[in-house]
Amino acid sequence: MSKPVDSAVSAVRTCVEHHRAAFLADLTEWLRIPSVSAQPDHAPDVRRSADWLAAKLTGTGFPTAEVWETPGAPAVYAEWPADDPHAPTVLVYGHHDVQPAAREDGWSSEPFEPVVRDGRLYARGAADDKGQVFFHTLGVRAHLAATGRTAPAVTLKLLIEGEEESGSPHFRALVEEHAERLAADAVIVSDTGMWSEHTPTVCTGMRGLAECEIRLYGPDQDIHSGSFGGAVPNPATAAARLVAALHDEHARVAIPGFYDGVIELTDRERELFAELPFDEGRWLRTAKSHAVHGEAGHTTLERIWARPTAEVNGIGGGYQGPGSKTIIPSSAMVKLSFRLVAGQDPGHIEKAVRAWAAGQLPAGIREEITFGPATRPCLTPLDHPALQSVVRAMGRAFEQPVRFTREGGSGPAADLQEVLGTPVLFLGVSVPSDGWHAPNEKVELDLLFKGVETSAYLWGDLAEHWRHAP
Amino acid sequence: MSKPVDSAVSAVRTCVEHHRAAFLADLTEWLRIPSVSAQPDHAPDVRRSADWLAAKLTGTGFPTAEVWETPGAPAVYAEWPADDPHAPTVLVYGHHDVQPAAREDGWSSEPFEPVVRDGRLYARGAADDKGQVFFHTLGVRAHLAATGRTAPAVTLKLLIEGEEESGSPHFRALVEEHAERLAADAVIVSDTGMWSEHTPTVCTGMRGLAECEIRLYGPDQDIHSGSFGGAVPNPATAAARLVAALHDEHARVAIPGFYDGVIELTDRERELFAELPFDEGRWLRTAKSHAVHGEAGHTTLERIWARPTAEVNGIGGGYQGPGSKTIIPSSAMVKLSFRLVAGQDPGHIEKAVRAWAAGQLPAGIREEITFGPATRPCLTPLDHPALQSVVRAMGRAFEQPVRFTREGGSGPAADLQEVLGTPVLFLGVSVPSDGWHAPNEKVELDLLFKGVETSAYLWGDLAEHWRHAP
Repeated sequence: MSKPVDSAVSAVRTCVEHHRAAFLADLTEWLRIPSVSAQPDHAPDVRRSADWLAAKLTGTGFPTAEVWETPGAPAVYAEWPADDPHAPTVLVYGHHDVQPAAREDGWSSEPFEPVVRDGRLYARGAADDKGQVFFHTLGVRAHLAATGRTAPAVTLKLLIEGEEESGSPHFRALVEEHAERLAADAVIVSDTGMWSEHTPTVCTGMRGLAECEIRLYGPDQDIHSGSFGGAVPNPATAAARLVAALHDEHARVAIPGFYDGVIELTDRERELFAELPFDEGRWLRTAKSHAVHGEAGHTTLERIWARPTAEVNGIGGGYQGPGSKTIIPSSAMVKLSFRLVAGQDPGHIEKAVRAWAAGQLPAGIREEITFGPATRPCLTPLDHPALQSVVRAMGRAFEQPVRFTREGGSGPAADLQEVLGTPVLFLGVSVPSDGWHAPNEKVELDLLFKGVETSAYLWGDLAEHWRHAP
Repeated sequence: MSKPVDSAVSAVRTCVEHHRAAFLADLTEWLRIPSVSAQPDHAPDVRRSADWLAAKLTGTGFPTAEVWETPGAPAVYAEWPADDPHAPTVLVYGHHDVQPAAREDGWSSEPFEPVVRDGRLYARGAADDKGQVFFHTLGVRAHLAATGRTAPAVTLKLLIEGEEESGSPHFRALVEEHAERLAADAVIVSDTGMWSEHTPTVCTGMRGLAECEIRLYGPDQDIHSGSFGGAVPNPATAAARLVAALHDEHARVAIPGFYDGVIELTDRERELFAELPFDEGRWLRTAKSHAVHGEAGHTTLERIWARPTAEVNGIGGGYQGPGSKTIIPSSAMVKLSFRLVAGQDPGHIEKAVRAWAAGQLPAGIREEITFGPATRPCLTPLDHPALQSVVRAMGRAFEQPVRFTREGGSGPAADLQEVLGTPVLFLGVSVPSDGWHAPNEKVELDLLFKGVETSAYLWGDLAEHWRHAP
């Protein structure tokens, strides 16, 4: 027995139903544009995708819709001011570029010829991220239709980048360049997912990321392990000992100062994580791994969502070909990445890693450490008013309690948080089976329209509960 | 003031002087044959080299001189029985193949057009090993001339292989096939060197070698370090921890059972090592290294000559290209080699390594360990009668006290020791500056003729001091 539906919900659903076919036709048209940012051949398609979206947003009613140039692929920016000058401003983030895809990779149909089968829309970008960007267009129309407004209850800004699948190389500069126009009270990222079809969730944070490469130099050239072995330091051994010293016997990161500032999970957050219907065996199959392993005293979900890590992404040194070669190699290399959680500062991590590494090395081994650009972690407290609006909007759409997740990965959303100084929230309706970056990517149509509905409820709820003091 | 020269020495020197020019002409002819075993194009040259040597040994007086076939390059075998049936039998080992060489590698003259400059004979193979094989031919003639014999005082056998520079792939099988004909009381290896021009030395042993590759498997494919990092075991981390666990804080190998059976240096041996004019700074420059590092409680010479080691020759896993890739790699690999000293058994080492490695790995990491063929260590006790003969013969030739070294590397001599059950001794007159395997390889002519003399004195001394009980 479902709960009685209020009149606002009923009005939104009527509007969504009315525009359903046209919405899907439009989305299908967009998905036909192979906007693969990683492949130079597709640069014109990425531009076509940006132009298409800007035109569509204008058609939706956005008074402003612009294509913003970058040194790479263009982004789309749109803005629709609220009537009320005290209304909050929300910036929606997504991306219009997609991962590469080719039929022969294992697709059952052409990746850029969208088809609906069994209530699912199959196409590259259906879930990541065109479908999730696009639900906001019908969402805002339904919001207006159901409330009788001519402008949204909040000032709505959209920033849809064109290089997310290529690592967002120009995104931060773009945000810095346009920081004034992008200013907002909250960022809503629609480029994530939910726990599952049956468990709607809101993501409350992403881990940050610091990456480095450590090169260790020993002898000036590879030397004979018979003539010299046992009497000079071996940089491959030094690299291994460094990596081994990354973790203590409880699989905690052993770099002094690494945990400085970490915001620990509250008891309530741990309870909420534990309430999720988590099947560790199934998770292990997704992870294609054969055992769990991690920081003592934490569950798997805590480990991937809320605990910082140190992982070796690559290690190399000496002879790696077939057979053997009796050398002491002249150098060795380790690539490390550190996932960071709220409270950790990438600059502090870099200092801590450099000091720690230098202290681990024997005489005769010289190190060279290079850090790449870092991504800060982001986390929205459970009691943040905007987060509560997202939860209520989603709850109305799904007619179910909404739970909380976090995201273990890291994304450009953190740049928005950092440059704009704005809290970041996540509203996504994709599910793990949607096949991001894989063949046969799809979006569940039912969930896509729940996304439309959530978007429709969200703006009014936000304006009602988070109005600026006049 | 030099010591008075006895008549035997005088007779040997007269003979050597007499044949000096012809000896050098012959050696030059042999060095012109580019018997590079590693390059298939030179296979006919390696055969020509074997034929040339067999003919020359016949010319020297050996009643038997044969070319022995292998699946690869041929070896040369020669035999000259003593008259006395109770005389000991000595097998001389060397090789007639050489390292590759090309003028453009940095040679000052053509590597296969021998030239004498400043008392040095420059050519590929001059020291390694044709020169050192060849000094025995004039050595035995001088022995006969000085003693008036028609056959040597010991039964002399020569086995000169043709694939040493290619890793002796068929040597053990060859020795096994001909074990009966090769039977001897001692093996004299003439494929090593001395401490320096001014410090004649005898090498008393070589380290053995066991090699393995350890492959570690974690996730079934590379997985995302954001989504899964911190919660599953990383095989690159496991590989590093394994390598780090190889040594304890005193740089001793920490594999249980590794040191089982090790014959420790006696106080006398340590004293003898310490008496050598060792310059650690100079040694470090040769090692192209920037610090010494090794097992606590041992000097550098002890570490490279008389202590077993565990070295990483290669390590690899995950992403090693430019930039970063946020993965947990699906596998990692380590190539290890263990130098072994007298008393250690390669089979026991293999068992110890397998047991140790399995015990180091976390759940979810599977290992695959492959051991290659091993080489046993060899060591001749200082009081061995044959070793004492070598020391006396060398002492007469050099008119200086003869000291002792060992060799840190490993060689096919160990196969002779193992298959024939015969102690192995080393008689070499090459010096570190001779440039083995390098451009401008040379041999010091003065030292080469000291080698001739040593060979001339050795057979009589051996027969005198080590005669079989009748």
